[in-house]
Amino acid sequence: MQGLWLEDQRLQFCTDLPQPQPAEGEALVRVLCAGICNTDLELLRGYYPYTGVIGHEFVGVVEQGPADLIDQRVVGEINAACGVCHYCQIGCPTHCENRTVLGIMNHHGAFAEYLTLPAKNLHLVSEAISTEAATFTEPIAAALEIQEQVAIERCDRILVVGDGKLGQLIAQTLALTGCNLRVVGRHPEKLAHLEALGISTTREESIENRSFDIAVDCTGNPAGFETARKALRPRGTLVMKSTYAGNLSLDASALVVDEITVVGSRCGPFSKALRVLEKGQVDVQPLIHAQYPLSEGLMAFKQAQQRGTLKVLLQMG
Amino acid sequence: MQGLWLEDQRLQFCTDLPQPQPAEGEALVRVLCAGICNTDLELLRGYYPYTGVIGHEFVGVVEQGPADLIDQRVVGEINAACGVCHYCQIGCPTHCENRTVLGIMNHHGAFAEYLTLPAKNLHLVSEAISTEAATFTEPIAAALEIQEQVAIERCDRILVVGDGKLGQLIAQTLALTGCNLRVVGRHPEKLAHLEALGISTTREESIENRSFDIAVDCTGNPAGFETARKALRPRGTLVMKSTYAGNLSLDASALVVDEITVVGSRCGPFSKALRVLEKGQVDVQPLIHAQYPLSEGLMAFKQAQQRGTLKVLLQMG
Repeated sequence: MQGLWLEDQRLQFCTDLPQPQPAEGEALVRVLCAGICNTDLELLRGYYPYTGVIGHEFVGVVEQGPADLIDQRVVGEINAACGVCHYCQIGCPTHCENRTVLGIMNHHGAFAEYLTLPAKNLHLVSEAISTEAATFTEPIAAALEIQEQVAIERCDRILVVGDGKLGQLIAQTLALTGCNLRVVGRHPEKLAHLEALGISTTREESIENRSFDIAVDCTGNPAGFETARKALRPRGTLVMKSTYAGNLSLDASALVVDEITVVGSRCGPFSKALRVLEKGQVDVQPLIHAQYPLSEGLMAFKQAQQRGTLKVLLQMG
Repeated sequence: MQGLWLEDQRLQFCTDLPQPQPAEGEALVRVLCAGICNTDLELLRGYYPYTGVIGHEFVGVVEQGPADLIDQRVVGEINAACGVCHYCQIGCPTHCENRTVLGIMNHHGAFAEYLTLPAKNLHLVSEAISTEAATFTEPIAAALEIQEQVAIERCDRILVVGDGKLGQLIAQTLALTGCNLRVVGRHPEKLAHLEALGISTTREESIENRSFDIAVDCTGNPAGFETARKALRPRGTLVMKSTYAGNLSLDASALVVDEITVVGSRCGPFSKALRVLEKGQVDVQPLIHAQYPLSEGLMAFKQAQQRGTLKVLLQMG
């Protein structure tokens, strides 16, 4: 089959990949559409030593698996859990000690014609959601994870640092809480998407120090972390929503003196993400920057790597 | 008066310092005994550009102030708050935007014959507590602050990283919760103090990775932070209990992937600390490494700076 193969940080388009065979409990999914995420770009830069098909944001159609899923459109949770370890037992499968992660760790991913996942990881996509929109389920779930971890009140002043793909979704999902929200970014055209949705944006030089209750860093770089920290009031909460390439150097004494809480945040609830999409509460259309057929996947990655690009989709059909 | 004066990171013993004059609402306190804290040592290394009398852990006798305090032994909270800013209004005077901090920021400290503090910062010391023991009120309060910020259950597995002055007090106060406690340190003689109190200790090489619910770093160095992080289970909590000289470089992606919460923690509740001392629930005697008269304060600092030293006290009487 066709697919994008990563090896030694080099990505290549292959036409002769073996079609993955579903193991017991797994379904075989024909991929319809997949999105390029920053984690994919980080993998190309060596964030994690992965070899195989990459890609983890997808929509597909089930070809083999449980009868109620056959021929249905699905999205899939990316952590394939063992079901028996301590974290699986206590209901935290995303932290399973033996997990594989679709397109990231020991499990071939979504930038190919077919993938396999445990059937229990799959969620049906209702007809109300287009295939392109459903491709955003995984990052919307990640955005919603913030609300799973941090109690957000309507009176909370929240700053989102970063106007990129994830920042856009985090801002839109936080806006649903009715909180006092502001997004800081460096790209006027990206900030304009948010302003068009009624979300306040600002430039960094206009942020009042020590004035926010919660700050979310979705930049994945030290400058973004520092912007978030400085914006926080004492005893505020800083949510780290991006993985960082390499070590992060930070002013730890400032965290201690101001008694800041830092919360690392990763994958989130798919069912809630699908509900948000179904109700049309998040507008993903303006985030789709370009679409490419799988055979032009390398060109799609070139585009995704360019500064200022939002979401790039691969169409497999 | 006599006192230890810090200027340009150089400490000197002076005999001609002006006695501080209490402002409105302040009391004049004759210092009996004061303890050297790691923050004092950090100030000598340039942690914060402070000029003046240093020292903030003390017991004294009130000579001028409210009638009910005159001639009484007291300890004092070190943050002098303005009483009118936002944080004072919401009951967080330790985060007052206009605060001075005894012996640390814009307020002459305790390594002198006299100090002043707002009368409302002072707490009476009951007769059941010796002057030497009461000198530990401030660091015991700081240790108890962990329990103000993080809910601790009896079933929690907690690792304290660091067997120094603060680590000893944190371990003893955490032990009061009945949690499953372990302390890791590098000094056999310091670990022996804890073992004698029935607290389990361990060497770093014996710590099982990803096995603790909560880890407290009281080392103030990057290696201690890393030990704490590695010991934590996914979704665990890392309490940062020390200020760090310079920036801390850390593996931020690991915090995100494991969804770790990091909590900066500083000053704590004096009244609870005094109650713990009064009930004899914390044993500070083994922590007193040496006592010096104020006039030999420079020698006391030399001793405090030596590796392996626990608490060094200055006697003013």
